[in-house]
Amino acid sequence: MEQNKVGNYNFVAEPFHVDFSGHLTMGVLGNHLLNCAGFHSTDRGFGIANLNEAHYTWVLSRLAVELDEMPYQYKKFSISTWVENVYRLFTDRNFEILDENGHTIGYARSVWAMISQQTRKPADLLTLHGGSIVDYVCDKECPIEKPSRIKVDDCEPDTTYEAKYSDIDINGHVNSIKYIERVLDLFPLEMYKEKRIKRFEVAYIAESYYGDTLSFYKQKINENEYNVEIKKNGGEVVCRSKMIFIN
Amino acid sequence: MEQNKVGNYNFVAEPFHVDFSGHLTMGVLGNHLLNCAGFHSTDRGFGIANLNEAHYTWVLSRLAVELDEMPYQYKKFSISTWVENVYRLFTDRNFEILDENGHTIGYARSVWAMISQQTRKPADLLTLHGGSIVDYVCDKECPIEKPSRIKVDDCEPDTTYEAKYSDIDINGHVNSIKYIERVLDLFPLEMYKEKRIKRFEVAYIAESYYGDTLSFYKQKINENEYNVEIKKNGGEVVCRSKMIFIN
Repeated sequence: MEQNKVGNYNFVAEPFHVDFSGHLTMGVLGNHLLNCAGFHSTDRGFGIANLNEAHYTWVLSRLAVELDEMPYQYKKFSISTWVENVYRLFTDRNFEILDENGHTIGYARSVWAMISQQTRKPADLLTLHGGSIVDYVCDKECPIEKPSRIKVDDCEPDTTYEAKYSDIDINGHVNSIKYIERVLDLFPLEMYKEKRIKRFEVAYIAESYYGDTLSFYKQKINENEYNVEIKKNGGEVVCRSKMIFIN
Repeated sequence: MEQNKVGNYNFVAEPFHVDFSGHLTMGVLGNHLLNCAGFHSTDRGFGIANLNEAHYTWVLSRLAVELDEMPYQYKKFSISTWVENVYRLFTDRNFEILDENGHTIGYARSVWAMISQQTRKPADLLTLHGGSIVDYVCDKECPIEKPSRIKVDDCEPDTTYEAKYSDIDINGHVNSIKYIERVLDLFPLEMYKEKRIKRFEVAYIAESYYGDTLSFYKQKINENEYNVEIKKNGGEVVCRSKMIFIN
């Protein structure tokens, strides 16, 4: 039973999923993490498909990833995932990222809510599927800090972007991974030549839609730390992100 | 031996790889096709890794994809690939795309060259790996037209885009899949609500790099057919593409 609480999934760093340095991009890693969350919950009876029948869906609220290295092109790696906590309105899901030799290269933390597809209001996780999600809570270690509260002071937008066909997911929203890619693209290639991302955080606050103009506000906290805020159509905050680089 | 000439690879349409309609995007399908080309050639001793040792690499010249339907979210599908022809400077590689029940849903054709990494000049495919690539030539049917010659008349650019961190591959070039995504994004979401892509073609002509400004010229041929040309920095043609929609 303890073993069944953790799901492990295998990947290969594909050529079009690596950056100029040959390492997997944070956007692709984020995609894999979210897929693992889906595999793990589906296999245990609380996946999107099960929820859809009951007109509920999972919504990702926060994601924090911390890494010692990124998988290199053509290398195998794996991702383990498990549920750390279940509260009434949120659940904490953690991840461990392992290289081809099974050595830990990073961890991630995520926070999810369940919402009603009809009312878009949060639903009670403790009653979901007879409360069975609680049976999978696992105390496996995840030695990275929880997602932080990200604050961006008033500043001029770094860039703007209009959401296009490729950005939109099956729910009609800009997909979670696209925000990550756009945030990475706020930094020049030179930055990625000198440094690598040690920690990446993203908090999803509101949905954006096809045709929305997204404004990206980037604030330098120190030499290696930046906060980013994305607003739509000059107003509502859609997403906040933190990047911590290391030399 | 005949059987070993064709490679078959399994996929699932992942949630962040489908568009608003729930169908796999052409960019993701293109990525999978190119990965299959890599798997197939590597397994037979003429993959990138083998070539790299000899300081040669594969370069994709043309790709044409024709489909009756695109795999839907969470559905399994598979891609078969084989070598149709080998000439001195080019090889034709074809693909069949099959749904979860093994029914054909589309085909693709691609044209590749091999170049020297030192001189960037084309190399003789008939002498590669002792000419063994010729042993894999296969006469499996591929009932779609070959990639066409795409011509775009002088016109004003539809949009421009500056190549960023996420666009650049391990060779320092804008990656082949990113061009496909940008071409798809030249069309409004409404177009994809009314029609689907019946045939997609792309011809890669020159490389573009980080910081290059890409201009997209879109010419309407008829109600359902568009040609696109991408130029870099106001001059050299990088890429041409054709989209044929069907209602």
